[in-house]
Amino acid sequence: ELVGLMGEIHYADVAEIINELNEEEATYLIKLLDSDKTSDVLTELDEDVREGILSNLSAKEIAGELEELDTDDAADIVGELPQEIVQEVISEIEDKEHAKDIVDLLRYDENSAGGLMAKELVKVREGWDVLTCVKEMRAQAENVTRVHSIYVVDDEDHLKGRLSLKDLLTTSTKTHIAQVYIPKVDSVNVNEKPEEVAKIMSKYDLEAIPVVDEIGRLVGRITIDDIVDVIKEEADKDYQMAAGISQDVEADDSIWDLTRARLPWLILGLFGGAGAAVIMGGFEEMFRQYTVLFLFTPLIAAMAGNVGVQSSAIIVQGLANDDIKGSIGNRLIKEMLLALLNGIILACLLLLFTWIWKGNFMTALAISVSLIAVIVVAGFIGTFTPLFLHKRGIDPAIATGPFITTSNDIFGILIYFMIAKMILGI
Amino acid sequence: ELVGLMGEIHYADVAEIINELNEEEATYLIKLLDSDKTSDVLTELDEDVREGILSNLSAKEIAGELEELDTDDAADIVGELPQEIVQEVISEIEDKEHAKDIVDLLRYDENSAGGLMAKELVKVREGWDVLTCVKEMRAQAENVTRVHSIYVVDDEDHLKGRLSLKDLLTTSTKTHIAQVYIPKVDSVNVNEKPEEVAKIMSKYDLEAIPVVDEIGRLVGRITIDDIVDVIKEEADKDYQMAAGISQDVEADDSIWDLTRARLPWLILGLFGGAGAAVIMGGFEEMFRQYTVLFLFTPLIAAMAGNVGVQSSAIIVQGLANDDIKGSIGNRLIKEMLLALLNGIILACLLLLFTWIWKGNFMTALAISVSLIAVIVVAGFIGTFTPLFLHKRGIDPAIATGPFITTSNDIFGILIYFMIAKMILGI
Ligand SMILES: [Mg+2]
Ligand SMILES: [Mg+2]
Ligand SMILES: [Mg+2]
Ligand SMILES: [Mg+2]
Ligand SMILES: [Mg+2]
Ligand SMILES: [Mg+2]
Ligand SMILES: [Mg+2]
Ligand SMILES: [Mg+2]
Ligand SMILES: [Mg+2]
Ligand SMILES: [Mg+2]
Ligand SMILES: [Mg+2]
Ligand SMILES: [Mg+2]
Ligand SMILES: [Mg+2]
Repeated sequence: ELVGLMGEIHYADVAEIINELNEEEATYLIKLLDSDKTSDVLTELDEDVREGILSNLSAKEIAGELEELDTDDAADIVGELPQEIVQEVISEIEDKEHAKDIVDLLRYDENSAGGLMAKELVKVREGWDVLTCVKEMRAQAENVTRVHSIYVVDDEDHLKGRLSLKDLLTTSTKTHIAQVYIPKVDSVNVNEKPEEVAKIMSKYDLEAIPVVDEIGRLVGRITIDDIVDVIKEEADKDYQMAAGISQDVEADDSIWDLTRARLPWLILGLFGGAGAAVIMGGFEEMFRQYTVLFLFTPLIAAMAGNVGVQSSAIIVQGLANDDIKGSIGNRLIKEMLLALLNGIILACLLLLFTWIWKGNFMTALAISVSLIAVIVVAGFIGTFTPLFLHKRGIDPAIATGPFITTSNDIFGILIYFMIAKMILGI
Repeated sequence: ELVGLMGEIHYADVAEIINELNEEEATYLIKLLDSDKTSDVLTELDEDVREGILSNLSAKEIAGELEELDTDDAADIVGELPQEIVQEVISEIEDKEHAKDIVDLLRYDENSAGGLMAKELVKVREGWDVLTCVKEMRAQAENVTRVHSIYVVDDEDHLKGRLSLKDLLTTSTKTHIAQVYIPKVDSVNVNEKPEEVAKIMSKYDLEAIPVVDEIGRLVGRITIDDIVDVIKEEADKDYQMAAGISQDVEADDSIWDLTRARLPWLILGLFGGAGAAVIMGGFEEMFRQYTVLFLFTPLIAAMAGNVGVQSSAIIVQGLANDDIKGSIGNRLIKEMLLALLNGIILACLLLLFTWIWKGNFMTALAISVSLIAVIVVAGFIGTFTPLFLHKRGIDPAIATGPFITTSNDIFGILIYFMIAKMILGI
């Protein structure tokens, strides 16, 4: 009756349940369920759970699952298998065409359009007449869950355009495809980054996009459901980087996995803090006279950090959304004007507070003026760093979070003591 | 020739160009272009640019644009128009059915499934026979860019299921729909939050989902392209909140807009810093003897902030992805164990550094032990706050970034001095 119950539930929900089970229970359930459903369940599982289950299945059983999957999902699973059983599993796949497609897909980098595409699509040759075309299409469509578009290729498989189903149905069966197809179709190169594909598909509201190789041959198709996953993963990754967590951990992961993802950033912060301590140690002789200056170091560090994080986040997001046009110079000037405006407002508040609290105008002024300088420099660092990394081809997202707060802590405190010292004439 | 050029370009690209022009040029270009294209361009423009252009168009011209849009996009534009011209614009729409649909959509909250759906869809009645059905479908499909699914309703418009095109084509024309439809179809309630709709569509890999009202009547349909926009906006919003930026600003916005989005969080940080200064002021008498303790306040504040941000980010993301199961208690215990593990490793490093630098083991020990306590408390606050807010129905994302770093600065410094004082027996 468990099988009956599971039969009613969507495979994505079954996968969620299985993710919570141990390996033995999970394998038991997978072997119990309808073969039709299990293959879909397998693609939806967490990678480690899937790995555990597959290690309990024979090569023949795994091949049976792959048989039922679209080539993109099948290739992803094969890519995760231990190297020594890959060949055996593939040779057990009965549909040789399907096996060939999977092997084809294996050679593409996971982080490219080729790694996302499936071989399932409907294509017709420009030389065919409408009658041949309809017949061929019917056969091809059997393997394709959703047709979306009919692509037109020439004899060498070069992508020429697409076909409107309506035009196809309203022309004589003797007409050649070359005369009715639409010679314009969006496509992406097989080496395109997934993020770029996502931008194109979301900008043009596409549900599927054909993928072509270096010489324009149609090699596959990417569908929007997989792009939705790319968009979500990319957003999760950027969010985690901004929080100082190496990508790819979840709340559910083990304490050890979480520590590995988090500790490196904390150690970076520790080094930064040690650096700040050494810098402050250099100003120790100011202590006796101007203890009050030291009371404001956490405030200075906090403001430098916050401004830096804000600036870098705006830039990282702008770069991701292609919103950032114009020169780096203009961008920096704008950000520093912004920081100056914010800095002056904040400095006035701080001046008032410190003056009232400590009753010494000159000290209050020194602290407040330093704050302005610190904020402007923090804005500069927060803007410049991601722009610079981006120019060098490095993902600017690593410049957010702990990286910016740590460097801004150090620069902020240094600038603060130097300027305060100057103003107070120490 | 400009018009010819623009005619070649996709409307989303034309919109990007127009976004960069001033109001006069933009209006000029819109009036110049093909009416067919301009309506699509209008929906893709930045809100302020669109507002400017529409203010230069007559009610009749605006109505002309609305006529060509899908009802969801048309309703969004009408929703932005000044209240006093809405009625006139709507009365100028020639297709009265279209006008009625737009007015229907206006009453839904933008932040709900109703605010996302369009009226364009293909539906058939269970009482019809296949022949009637095909005839009716053909007429309906004229207004729908992509059919996706054929929905089946009863005489009161209650959603009953969907129809497979294949079944439709392979059964006799006299068969009643009631006998061939699939009585199972995913749908969402009209009041569902966009984020929930996005979760459902992405989990089940849907390209369109029907929307039903409180009594199960089919009232509209949401397509995946609009959900892709929801997912991206939601991710952008969370990212900005984590960085201390109120949502809805872009790198391109004016300095004034950016200041308004950023200054409140900086003022929060300023208050926090002032609080920390006051707390440190209470420990001033410790100065002469243990100056070294003060040198480490930035380090303590930084570590408290980083740990807090990491913990809260994991929780916020886990909540967004429905990854967080189990009790708050367990979650807190796990997070504090994690913090303890990280804290001990970091404290050992710090102990070594301080001991070597200052040559005083007891002071180094006091600082390091305090660091462990600070990290554990920071992990607790970072975990508890978003969980608590979520339980109360508040978006936990506001608990990240400046909010967490500011409160952790204060608590961190307070705990640090208290514990160090205890250990050193001052
Ligand atoms: Mg199976
Ligand atoms: Mg792949
Ligand atoms: Mg779009
Ligand atoms: Mg759109
Ligand atoms: Mg796929
Ligand atoms: Mg990125
Ligand atoms: Mg900080
Ligand atoms: Mg128009
Ligand atoms: Mg709307
Ligand atoms: Mg999905
Ligand atoms: Mg999927
Ligand atoms: Mg739409
Ligand atoms: Mg959210």
